[in-house]
Amino acid sequence: MCRWLAYSGSPIALAELLYKPQHSLIDQSRHARMGVETTNGDGCGVGWYPDLADRASPAEPAVFRATGPAWSERNLLELARCVRSPLFLAHIRASTGTAVQQSNCHPFRYGHWLWMHNGAIHGFPELKRDLALLIDPSLYPYVEGSTDSELMFYLALSLGLRDDAPRAVERMIRTIEEAGQRHGVPAPLQMTVAVSDGSRLWAFRYSTEHRSRSLFFSTDVRTLRTLHPEVAALKEVADGTRIVVSEPLGDLEGAWHEVPESSYAYVADGHGELHPLSSVAA
Amino acid sequence: MCRWLAYSGSPIALAELLYKPQHSLIDQSRHARMGVETTNGDGCGVGWYPDLADRASPAEPAVFRATGPAWSERNLLELARCVRSPLFLAHIRASTGTAVQQSNCHPFRYGHWLWMHNGAIHGFPELKRDLALLIDPSLYPYVEGSTDSELMFYLALSLGLRDDAPRAVERMIRTIEEAGQRHGVPAPLQMTVAVSDGSRLWAFRYSTEHRSRSLFFSTDVRTLRTLHPEVAALKEVADGTRIVVSEPLGDLEGAWHEVPESSYAYVADGHGELHPLSSVAA
Amino acid sequence: MCRWLAYSGSPIALAELLYKPQHSLIDQSRHARMGVETTNGDGCGVGWYPDLADRASPAEPAVFRATGPAWSERNLLELARCVRSPLFLAHIRASTGTAVQQSNCHPFRYGHWLWMHNGAIHGFPELKRDLALLIDPSLYPYVEGSTDSELMFYLALSLGLRDDAPRAVERMIRTIEEAGQRHGVPAPLQMTVAVSDGSRLWAFRYSTEHRSRSLFFSTDVRTLRTLHPEVAALKEVADGTRIVVSEPLGDLEGAWHEVPESSYAYVADGHGELHPLSSVAA
Amino acid sequence: MCRWLAYSGSPIALAELLYKPQHSLIDQSRHARMGVETTNGDGCGVGWYPDLADRASPAEPAVFRATGPAWSERNLLELARCVRSPLFLAHIRASTGTAVQQSNCHPFRYGHWLWMHNGAIHGFPELKRDLALLIDPSLYPYVEGSTDSELMFYLALSLGLRDDAPRAVERMIRTIEEAGQRHGVPAPLQMTVAVSDGSRLWAFRYSTEHRSRSLFFSTDVRTLRTLHPEVAALKEVADGTRIVVSEPLGDLEGAWHEVPESSYAYVADGHGELHPLSSVAA
Repeated sequence: MCRWLAYSGSPIALAELLYKPQHSLIDQSRHARMGVETTNGDGCGVGWYPDLADRASPAEPAVFRATGPAWSERNLLELARCVRSPLFLAHIRASTGTAVQQSNCHPFRYGHWLWMHNGAIHGFPELKRDLALLIDPSLYPYVEGSTDSELMFYLALSLGLRDDAPRAVERMIRTIEEAGQRHGVPAPLQMTVAVSDGSRLWAFRYSTEHRSRSLFFSTDVRTLRTLHPEVAALKEVADGTRIVVSEPLGDLEGAWHEVPESSYAYVADGHGELHPLSSVAA
Repeated sequence: MCRWLAYSGSPIALAELLYKPQHSLIDQSRHARMGVETTNGDGCGVGWYPDLADRASPAEPAVFRATGPAWSERNLLELARCVRSPLFLAHIRASTGTAVQQSNCHPFRYGHWLWMHNGAIHGFPELKRDLALLIDPSLYPYVEGSTDSELMFYLALSLGLRDDAPRAVERMIRTIEEAGQRHGVPAPLQMTVAVSDGSRLWAFRYSTEHRSRSLFFSTDVRTLRTLHPEVAALKEVADGTRIVVSEPLGDLEGAWHEVPESSYAYVADGHGELHPLSSVAA
Repeated sequence: MCRWLAYSGSPIALAELLYKPQHSLIDQSRHARMGVETTNGDGCGVGWYPDLADRASPAEPAVFRATGPAWSERNLLELARCVRSPLFLAHIRASTGTAVQQSNCHPFRYGHWLWMHNGAIHGFPELKRDLALLIDPSLYPYVEGSTDSELMFYLALSLGLRDDAPRAVERMIRTIEEAGQRHGVPAPLQMTVAVSDGSRLWAFRYSTEHRSRSLFFSTDVRTLRTLHPEVAALKEVADGTRIVVSEPLGDLEGAWHEVPESSYAYVADGHGELHPLSSVAA
Repeated sequence: MCRWLAYSGSPIALAELLYKPQHSLIDQSRHARMGVETTNGDGCGVGWYPDLADRASPAEPAVFRATGPAWSERNLLELARCVRSPLFLAHIRASTGTAVQQSNCHPFRYGHWLWMHNGAIHGFPELKRDLALLIDPSLYPYVEGSTDSELMFYLALSLGLRDDAPRAVERMIRTIEEAGQRHGVPAPLQMTVAVSDGSRLWAFRYSTEHRSRSLFFSTDVRTLRTLHPEVAALKEVADGTRIVVSEPLGDLEGAWHEVPESSYAYVADGHGELHPLSSVAA
């Protein structure tokens, strides 16, 4: 379906994670190992928050989105080389049916919030109208594209994302599952979602049938330094640096932990946590 | 806003009208004379019905749509040279705010129906949700883009376009104007619209404030032949051939009549008519 | 590298071969089995000659070329459904380094000639200038893109393609191999090439190291009818119909023969032949 | 033909010049006043050098180039808002015939050099081969597109641009004019060119017929402050800040001086100068 990467930590050039690793996100655009398809060639995007050291805060993120495959997108490469950021979301798309167009590329932005998704709402053509009606009328005009992913974002915003992200995502999950029930769609939701407000980052893993797409959370940097004293790069990143990815970027032993089913990773203020999605985990 | 052309008559290569005339539609993409802007560079499209002589009827139209300006769109030129059709709609877009993407390019297609529009629903962000809810739930999943134009098409389909096109368009007009009233938008609608089912062609001109965008209807070919016995091309086209355009394609004396305010042109079975939009003409 | 298909026979809708077969060319854009890569997502194109029954001959072919992956290219699908042709070339591209742009998509056209290629000139950056200088000065201005494939076409045109296609292609091969020798590139050429003038079709398979990319030639239709009396479609195609493909389109027993190393298939006047590339076969 | 802008001075967000001024470069993409065409909709690009304060020097510039019109290019807007640079080149293209593709968008980059052009080599199809042969063989493989503009860049590089930019550009001019003479093209060159190595900026204005496209150089900031004590923005920019543009960005009295025929502006080390192109000024 798609692959994505979210980063929070010491400011780095985006290319360090998007291009340089052995199994980088760009590599995954042609050679995904854990996705439904090996090819994720239906567009790409990156949203990044400015480095607070050199800008006024709290800043709106910038977003770059393109419809071509990531592997041949030269502007993405240019950007990734010169933009440094302490917090960014990157995405490569494999459409599940909706049009290949910029407004369907992730991440989606509303104010200083960014959202991206891997997965699908099954039976989306049948469920779409019901779900669109549940978007707050004041938010409705901001929906630009035609994907299930963007609609999920506006549903979550309508259900309180800005106040309590995990509770709003749980409400969004239940809302979609109730719509699925009304329309006779047995397992309507399949998702890994990353969302950020510029200081906090959440990464959710959930599916109705509890067989969710892969999601990995990087190990605490302090632990990794002990495991791998030989890896110099680990000395340069801040203690709280974390990466959440659809697929590990390489084979460094102990570097990646699977995010459990029906749970989410949370990164803020220099540390990371895992929590169950208690109200929907049933 | 946009410029368009609709043709019904003897099968001709699309290029005869899209490229060859002095002030062709492609010329209008950079040098429109009667539009709000001289430039219509936000995409282009053409939908055409097959020549019934060599196909089984009633056929679905084919649609070509591209996001670049018409003047540099090589595939359009190739197509226009080799495709012959007795009935086609062509459009060059000047966005009034919605994204430049293929799914926002005209003409829009549903089954064997084609629709294209020049103009705007004013206050569209405010009115959009109300109008979207009035689309028949069975049609709702087919809306692919984000334009007012496509939404008007699905509203018209929901309001009976397939049974009685002029009455359905009048209902659509009233529906949009009522939504405008509810939201305090004084003059919500500005439109010239072409719609066809493959055998009939309608071209509507209307705006709430009765100052609609330009629309011209070609003179009956028999009359033109008498006026211009020197124009050889007129001998080769069938009697009932008609062209409806946002702007005249050239300066041939007597060749073009303005479609009056709040009325529509109708072309079928080899003849053309003009009718008032009686129930909204007030 | 790339995959392609060339067809000569009874006029058919392009979609019959591009979309309908089990392992169609469009399927190969994501799931090539015999290519260097499974993904061929760097553009696509089709060039077709008009059906002589309804046009004046000898006609220029039309060409459609797009930079996105074939699997999501809606205009190609539209075209393929409505265009019927007795002779066409279709191509899906996997770039070997040159830019993803329309002018690098195949097939290339010069007058009524079409050319497409799978493979590469190895060491192309080093050899390019030498080879460009050997293009006839009168043809030089027509080179539009930056690929080795288009340059090969103009070399072949400069070396007599219009007079004797197989001999000109052999000269082109030797010219490239000589340039390779001068620059110390041991195995400079890897190619399967299709070329047509609108009535004849040639399909070449060659590589300096005699380990060429796959190429298949469809069996004579009369033979296939005897083998498969149960396949109704075979009764509808003319006797001389032939398809040349990078990979078989399906699993019909006996339907496909590999084109041997260093040889070419020739289709014209309703029959097909295989010939060695004698002067370079060494 | 095209319009461009070059900036050297205090680091600013690109959007300050590309989007904010009354007659900004983006405005010029639809409403150029002094160009051959009012529309410059055949692509856009910007190349910028990093702010040396936060990067290691001497840095390669980053380049963003897109084929759509600047007015609807959302990624350009995003970039322009978040990228700050002390030295950048921005361009909007109106093709004089060559393909609308990324590799034909300006600025062109070689190493840490950037180049952009407004104008044309007249008779380019006839002259192209001669000129291409004069590119140094070691530079030839770096030519990616098909424009006269990029070819001029590689000619200038071959003729010593890196050692003495003004002399190399004069040599390039003479080389093109000699090729024109050989081919019977009376006035082969029309150009305004900006070129930078990351610390110095040159802007040339020349045409064989001495009727060159418009080019303006901003007045010394100290002088402007005296003229306009009411303009607060002038207090914030460094003394040596200079802008060179195809058309003035606004109507501030005394802010713009025309660059004379057959001369060039030079900006470095915080001051600007104008010099004649002595050897070609005849």
